Amino acid sequence: MNTENTPTPIPPTAPHTPLRILVVGTGAIGGYYGAQLAKAGAQVTTVHRSDFAAVRDQGIHIDGLRGSYHFRPAQVLRRVADYDGFPDYILVCLKVLGNIDTAEIIRPAVGPATTIVLLQNGVEIEEEVAKKFPHNELLSGLAFVCLSRTTPGHISHTCYGHLTIGRYPSGPSQAAERLAETFEAAGTDCPVTETIAWERWKKLVWNAAFNPISVLGQATTREILSHPATAQLVRRTMTEVCCIATAAGYPLTDAIVQKNLDATQRIKPYKTSMLLDYLSGRSMEVEAILGNAIQVAKRYQVAVPCLETVYALLSLFTQQLATRRQDDSLQ
Amino acid sequence: MNTENTPTPIPPTAPHTPLRILVVGTGAIGGYYGAQLAKAGAQVTTVHRSDFAAVRDQGIHIDGLRGSYHFRPAQVLRRVADYDGFPDYILVCLKVLGNIDTAEIIRPAVGPATTIVLLQNGVEIEEEVAKKFPHNELLSGLAFVCLSRTTPGHISHTCYGHLTIGRYPSGPSQAAERLAETFEAAGTDCPVTETIAWERWKKLVWNAAFNPISVLGQATTREILSHPATAQLVRRTMTEVCCIATAAGYPLTDAIVQKNLDATQRIKPYKTSMLLDYLSGRSMEVEAILGNAIQVAKRYQVAVPCLETVYALLSLFTQQLATRRQDDSLQ
Repeated sequence: MNTENTPTPIPPTAPHTPLRILVVGTGAIGGYYGAQLAKAGAQVTTVHRSDFAAVRDQGIHIDGLRGSYHFRPAQVLRRVADYDGFPDYILVCLKVLGNIDTAEIIRPAVGPATTIVLLQNGVEIEEEVAKKFPHNELLSGLAFVCLSRTTPGHISHTCYGHLTIGRYPSGPSQAAERLAETFEAAGTDCPVTETIAWERWKKLVWNAAFNPISVLGQATTREILSHPATAQLVRRTMTEVCCIATAAGYPLTDAIVQKNLDATQRIKPYKTSMLLDYLSGRSMEVEAILGNAIQVAKRYQVAVPCLETVYALLSLFTQQLATRRQDDSLQ
Repeated sequence: MNTENTPTPIPPTAPHTPLRILVVGTGAIGGYYGAQLAKAGAQVTTVHRSDFAAVRDQGIHIDGLRGSYHFRPAQVLRRVADYDGFPDYILVCLKVLGNIDTAEIIRPAVGPATTIVLLQNGVEIEEEVAKKFPHNELLSGLAFVCLSRTTPGHISHTCYGHLTIGRYPSGPSQAAERLAETFEAAGTDCPVTETIAWERWKKLVWNAAFNPISVLGQATTREILSHPATAQLVRRTMTEVCCIATAAGYPLTDAIVQKNLDATQRIKPYKTSMLLDYLSGRSMEVEAILGNAIQVAKRYQVAVPCLETVYALLSLFTQQLATRRQDDSLQ
């Protein structure tokens, strides 16, 4: 763990100065949580790649659990470097993929007092950013939410919505408290934790099981659980994640496995984010969700045959998919 | 094991009477080996479902390793019951699927002196037929061949071609010797074994690894082996099959795993039969190739996490595929 991360104290803000937020990677997650912060009075700017024109012209429409609402960012940018000055917070909602260098993408907008918030999937995803910005406060966050980007500038919100944030790698954080208060003011539960790495492992229990199985089986959560062999596989995979986490110093017991299974039975049939990515032809976060966990298992010599099998198959599948898409684009 | 299988002695045949063969399930395997027996002078009748009209009108064209050749069956039938009398041998080349009752399909043509030959994939596939025809000689056979049915009545033969046959469950067999001589006369190697069940496990080492991985990864043998994580998965799955076989009384060591890997590296990139079935929208032999082996593992309490994971994913995948195809056909 990085224990040398010594954050610069947050400078006091005048009571009526709105928080300046820059959302980088404004897909469903970035659009939704950016909108929440704007609701609470923050000045939220968004950076887009594919949806730039749609959002510049029409803002972001969210078809929410409690009716629809519309979010018009303070500014809509194509590039991080176009941001004027430095924001109080950079909310990083980029996917965690091998070919994305998060630190270099956000660098132009990271000022001396900017807090970086990684609202991303997976485990052990923070170290690179922590190393490159050793003097900035680094928060790590988890979103518990069912969202999908239906068309450019349109997001559908179907369940949950809360966040957990905390200082990376651990400990208290004033910057986290302030951001959490803003989310809470918009009605989004956002507990602050002093053990965010542990929370990442807890969330991975669900993600490492349902995401890859949903893609390889082309199935919803309901379909996965209604098939006895895959229901058993889900349980085993979750148990393996608990074993890795426990070995790495974040104890998780079978109780969390049962809790995850029960909760999934209760929600509507759900397409995982990885399945939605696959169905839309987008890249999948195979390394952040499976590869990193398997690396930790190797480090602590934990046997994870189910995770390794699922990982091997999904890696092959995504590689073949990329080859076919490349072939198609060359024709 | 069934040790009560007391075969009726084969009645002597006049030297110039051709063997009467009925091929049931005339896909690539049935068409190819039926043609071999006909080459050696046997009177070969074929039963077809989908390719009946094409084969009745034009016979079977085989694009072979040593040039093309043409096989015109003695008779081309739609149903087993249309066969006149009883053949010396029924060569069963049907797929092993849960909804196919092989014994009932062949029953109309099983005479008192008919030898039944199951030329099919998987392990533990013979018991049902053995029980229903306790007084007939039952042979079990394995085909080591790369074939594909390209269009109705056309078969492409790309590598190998030998068979292994033997009495089920074990022991010597005059009927096996006579059939083997006929194959050998046509240039097809056909050793007779007294331990066919053991041979089935040996063949399963390759089949249980490459077939499901090729479908889940949508990949050829070469692509599977060039990806380190799946190359390791192939090795592990093969090792698990060896452990089951050994526990069941058919010792297999790691040497066979290495031999299979080396041989696969040497052949051209190959689409497994299960992948070809998937790509053509045909049913896959998931139970014969994986489900039965896992049942044996449970019986002997052998841990097979990789096989179970692959089996669970493939079962879910095939179930989802069937649902989607049904939905498509209803639209």
